[in-house]
Amino acid sequence: MKAEGTMETRVSGLRKEVIISHNRQTIMIGERINPTGKKKLAQVLKSGDLRFIVEEAHAQIIEGADILDVNVGIPEIDEAALLTETIELLMSEVDAPLCFDSVNPVALEAALKAYRGKPLINSVSGEEKSMKTILPLVKEYNTAVIALPMDEKGIPQSTEKRMEISYKIVEQAGLLGIPAEDIIIDCLALSVATDSKAGLVALETTRRIRDDLGLNVTVGASNISFGMPERQVIDAGFLSLAVLSGLTCPIVDPGKMGPAILAADLLLGRDRYGSRYLKNHRLRKKSGKSTEV
Amino acid sequence: MKAEGTMETRVSGLRKEVIISHNRQTIMIGERINPTGKKKLAQVLKSGDLRFIVEEAHAQIIEGADILDVNVGIPEIDEAALLTETIELLMSEVDAPLCFDSVNPVALEAALKAYRGKPLINSVSGEEKSMKTILPLVKEYNTAVIALPMDEKGIPQSTEKRMEISYKIVEQAGLLGIPAEDIIIDCLALSVATDSKAGLVALETTRRIRDDLGLNVTVGASNISFGMPERQVIDAGFLSLAVLSGLTCPIVDPGKMGPAILAADLLLGRDRYGSRYLKNHRLRKKSGKSTEV
Repeated sequence: MKAEGTMETRVSGLRKEVIISHNRQTIMIGERINPTGKKKLAQVLKSGDLRFIVEEAHAQIIEGADILDVNVGIPEIDEAALLTETIELLMSEVDAPLCFDSVNPVALEAALKAYRGKPLINSVSGEEKSMKTILPLVKEYNTAVIALPMDEKGIPQSTEKRMEISYKIVEQAGLLGIPAEDIIIDCLALSVATDSKAGLVALETTRRIRDDLGLNVTVGASNISFGMPERQVIDAGFLSLAVLSGLTCPIVDPGKMGPAILAADLLLGRDRYGSRYLKNHRLRKKSGKSTEV
Repeated sequence: MKAEGTMETRVSGLRKEVIISHNRQTIMIGERINPTGKKKLAQVLKSGDLRFIVEEAHAQIIEGADILDVNVGIPEIDEAALLTETIELLMSEVDAPLCFDSVNPVALEAALKAYRGKPLINSVSGEEKSMKTILPLVKEYNTAVIALPMDEKGIPQSTEKRMEISYKIVEQAGLLGIPAEDIIIDCLALSVATDSKAGLVALETTRRIRDDLGLNVTVGASNISFGMPERQVIDAGFLSLAVLSGLTCPIVDPGKMGPAILAADLLLGRDRYGSRYLKNHRLRKKSGKSTEV
């Protein structure tokens, strides 16, 4: 299979469509609505007082997020109810399309029923069980989906094996009638602290997904620097390199990584007159978030 | 002309050789010994008390510089005498090879006579006058040289024209018996604030110099962000992208851009166990220069 060019993934909220494509500016998926390792957000989700989540949503959009990832996975809660409530609240507050970050099919389906627009599901993997539970939801509710090129044996170290699993997921999705362009591959960045080739493999996977499959590519950048000092330098460098290699929609903290991503687009000639970079700078400066010294 | 692989440029000080190559770690040329826009350094050079220059040399090496650029060009001085004195002082203080940053052939020749090792000359251009005065010095004193792909008409906006001038300089040098591997091309980064394609053209030139000529590539990164806010973000992003495209020996302030360059090498699998990145971090931390918060 050789892609005949690159594909467009369209996702939408009630009032806004976002097009992800290799020929356009990089789309940022804001990662901050996620309680993993964040005490305050975990507490907020337990208490049911979701105002802080709305604040985080607005802040991320000011910082440049185009899509918001929503993860409410904490122990001992009714994820279906909480995810649905959060999604409904966010739909009423922001225009940006949402990305449902859960592997719980019951929670996903409840939230999908409540959503108006075409969301992104994060994520399906190459494991049989995952494909069997997630892909039918992608089809039934007409969503886009992030696919992790890993399977029952874990995350492959080689680009070749990651490509093989990516092809498998695309094929399985195709059998259900899901178009390839609705699948976004996560290039899976592991830590360079434990494997010196981790960066290279993630970049090579990104390039191959673009060149061979024509699909959009995402990544959660911060794994790459796990265990290293001055992590933001490594994360920003990785995102720049990945954008050049074919990354189109990273999942990031836009407050930290927004400038690096917008700079990469600027340097690659995708930001005429630097207008997006400058607008983002002004907005962050106004809210006291510029890195300018 | 198609290169049969990539070439090695060797430069040396009295006690240290540095090999620049596409197959090795990125070499940093420290830019801070240059009075342009720096009041203190200009004053130091006028007064003749050069201790601050020695301090800057040591500091840049701690921060990761492999080669030191030396520019003493201020008005109303005897550049030949001052460049020679500075070069002699630095040779006695540091092992790193030096890069003579001057277009004054008299100053260059005086300094070349005093130098022991194989230095780098910064720079020759495609202008007839420049080639006629600089290339014979490169040949006679067996140096390496940075070549700017610009000519009497200024800096070309197109990659094609920059390649044409690069070929011309390599050819002219060849006629004098200067081997191609002693020529390092500057990809010439102009500001993205005035030309949205400036980054793309510099990156494309870098890639073509590597792929078509097999030569090493340098750049003075900070022009790229001239006129934009949060310049370090743009400079660091540009360096990452350029390293992936074939940049092998940027001229930078290692205190500001060192981490980004070492991170790029780390991400491209050129820094086993991250040992260079970690060592640099420790050294900077010890001298209070880490960006860690």
